[in-house]
Amino acid sequence: MKQTKLKDIGEFSLINSLQKLIESSAPNNIDPKFQLVAGIGDDTAVWESPKSTQLLTTDTSVEGVHFNSINSQWDDIGWKAMTANLSDIAAMGGIPLYCVISLGLNPDSFTSDILSLYTGILEASNEYGCRVVGGDISKSVPEFINIALFGYCSQKPVTRFGAQVGESVAVTGTVGGALAGLKLLTNNQDKAFSSLTKLERQHVITTHNRPHSARIHEGLKLASSGVSAAIDISDGLYADLSRLCDASKVSAKIHQPLLPVNNSLKSLSSKEQALLALQSGEEYELIYTAPSALVQQLNNSLLTPSTIIGEIIQQEAQSVTVLDRNNDQLCLQVDGWDHFIKK
Amino acid sequence: MKQTKLKDIGEFSLINSLQKLIESSAPNNIDPKFQLVAGIGDDTAVWESPKSTQLLTTDTSVEGVHFNSINSQWDDIGWKAMTANLSDIAAMGGIPLYCVISLGLNPDSFTSDILSLYTGILEASNEYGCRVVGGDISKSVPEFINIALFGYCSQKPVTRFGAQVGESVAVTGTVGGALAGLKLLTNNQDKAFSSLTKLERQHVITTHNRPHSARIHEGLKLASSGVSAAIDISDGLYADLSRLCDASKVSAKIHQPLLPVNNSLKSLSSKEQALLALQSGEEYELIYTAPSALVQQLNNSLLTPSTIIGEIIQQEAQSVTVLDRNNDQLCLQVDGWDHFIKK
Repeated sequence: MKQTKLKDIGEFSLINSLQKLIESSAPNNIDPKFQLVAGIGDDTAVWESPKSTQLLTTDTSVEGVHFNSINSQWDDIGWKAMTANLSDIAAMGGIPLYCVISLGLNPDSFTSDILSLYTGILEASNEYGCRVVGGDISKSVPEFINIALFGYCSQKPVTRFGAQVGESVAVTGTVGGALAGLKLLTNNQDKAFSSLTKLERQHVITTHNRPHSARIHEGLKLASSGVSAAIDISDGLYADLSRLCDASKVSAKIHQPLLPVNNSLKSLSSKEQALLALQSGEEYELIYTAPSALVQQLNNSLLTPSTIIGEIIQQEAQSVTVLDRNNDQLCLQVDGWDHFIKK
Repeated sequence: MKQTKLKDIGEFSLINSLQKLIESSAPNNIDPKFQLVAGIGDDTAVWESPKSTQLLTTDTSVEGVHFNSINSQWDDIGWKAMTANLSDIAAMGGIPLYCVISLGLNPDSFTSDILSLYTGILEASNEYGCRVVGGDISKSVPEFINIALFGYCSQKPVTRFGAQVGESVAVTGTVGGALAGLKLLTNNQDKAFSSLTKLERQHVITTHNRPHSARIHEGLKLASSGVSAAIDISDGLYADLSRLCDASKVSAKIHQPLLPVNNSLKSLSSKEQALLALQSGEEYELIYTAPSALVQQLNNSLLTPSTIIGEIIQQEAQSVTVLDRNNDQLCLQVDGWDHFIKK
């Protein structure tokens, strides 16, 4: 069957199809206090708002930088682009509400792929009653997806800058899988992973391509219990915890044996596990700081329990230190992610 | 002097510079009821909100499609990208408030150019007390600028779908200059413009590169006077009026001699003037519909007066008809703008 290309149908026919797709799958669990007055098809989206605390975030995925349609399905690419934004709302303890989607598209793209991309976006957003209310479509090679997501807090939002010395550092779920999956997708002969079974390989690839949903429920619990600071993992546990420490003007001590490494990676060496756990980005777990008793108490109510991995300390030199099982400092070359500097 | 490139300083150094630039030029005229709690540097921006009607819009500019840094200065490119978004808020009768900026950047870009781009963005946004509260930076060639802008209405927003049969169609300011400027930038030997003086040429080029500010004040007046429908000109008077008609399920009859053509184009043939006036995009004037008495009354209070150019009619076939001075239908091949279909 010959597939329709974007250059055959044009921008307005595409927008029409997307609008139908969005309206046919509009979530029915949006807070009625935020009633939509005008969605797609006017100069801006319009909605009513009660008195509240409001949130706005944005995130872009660029072809060849953040995603690669050879290794990933289009619906997974859309799902992840949306989840990256939802996860930022989760880290504040917020509820996602309305979003606008801007696409840069190659005229030679198949419209079925773009509809699939959007289907993934809607799967992720609808899960939390979040609705697409507008957007913008441009020509661009490489392609890109930009989402700006608006949400609100029904309680005090959790920022990055409240961590206190003596508190525990905890992380929800497990870490390391997304980076392992990416490395296997890039080189399925990678010797570092020769000990993994076929099922374990498949599992970490899925963790990369379609991670768990954003931790919205967990973020709400963290906010209502009054944890002191939180951040989501988008650039890796080490990099994101460093940011939280910088914002709070404190340091953190992490115990490598406590890292909740993805189960599929347990056959790797402990150093390899630690490197993956500390550097794996787009993992979308939440890191937070709180007294250890509160972490224990929270774990009784979180859908995805958390693990204490260290504590907040006062230290001048370095914001995050990792200790091995002998309490010796691990000398790890933990790379941050910089879009521009050539390595 | 050797200019610093993006690949020399990296993403985080750039973000640091941009953050300083933004904070040093934060507007001091933001409505205090919408107090910012957390801006750049957390997972999302956070602000307080009173009960209100809220607006969200987004617009993308892609290098080679929407802008060209050979013909335009970087601060003008930024100014226009922001104005495109502000203009959408203006068309609803809203007040712009907070925005997030996503940039796709070439590692070989000069950081001074990116700071200049941002300076233009801030010049446009600060004029209306609108504040940058976050963003995202990615690697991308071609480069792109995406802005998502949040605003609010202190009164009922003006949508596209309220135009009534018998009402007048009016447009603020003048039209046609931006397209003439673009044509001259692309081909300064274009014979169609041989009658223009040097000053007139410079004027229309400026109209293209740095148009007037978004019509925020005018939009507020339109909303408070209760006009029935409005839209801004981003794709051309003809295309945008057609959209307003489609949304309102009516048609419009436009009288060519009434079109408020840019003064610098008065030496052109009337047909050439009409084509430019009808097709000129990124013009950022407001088209609105209202009883003619209301238009007259509004003109006493608008900073930029408007001109009645036709009326809303009921007609099945075509949404916008253009009549010449003899009331004969002008047979114009008015092109819409489609990002994808090959002409």
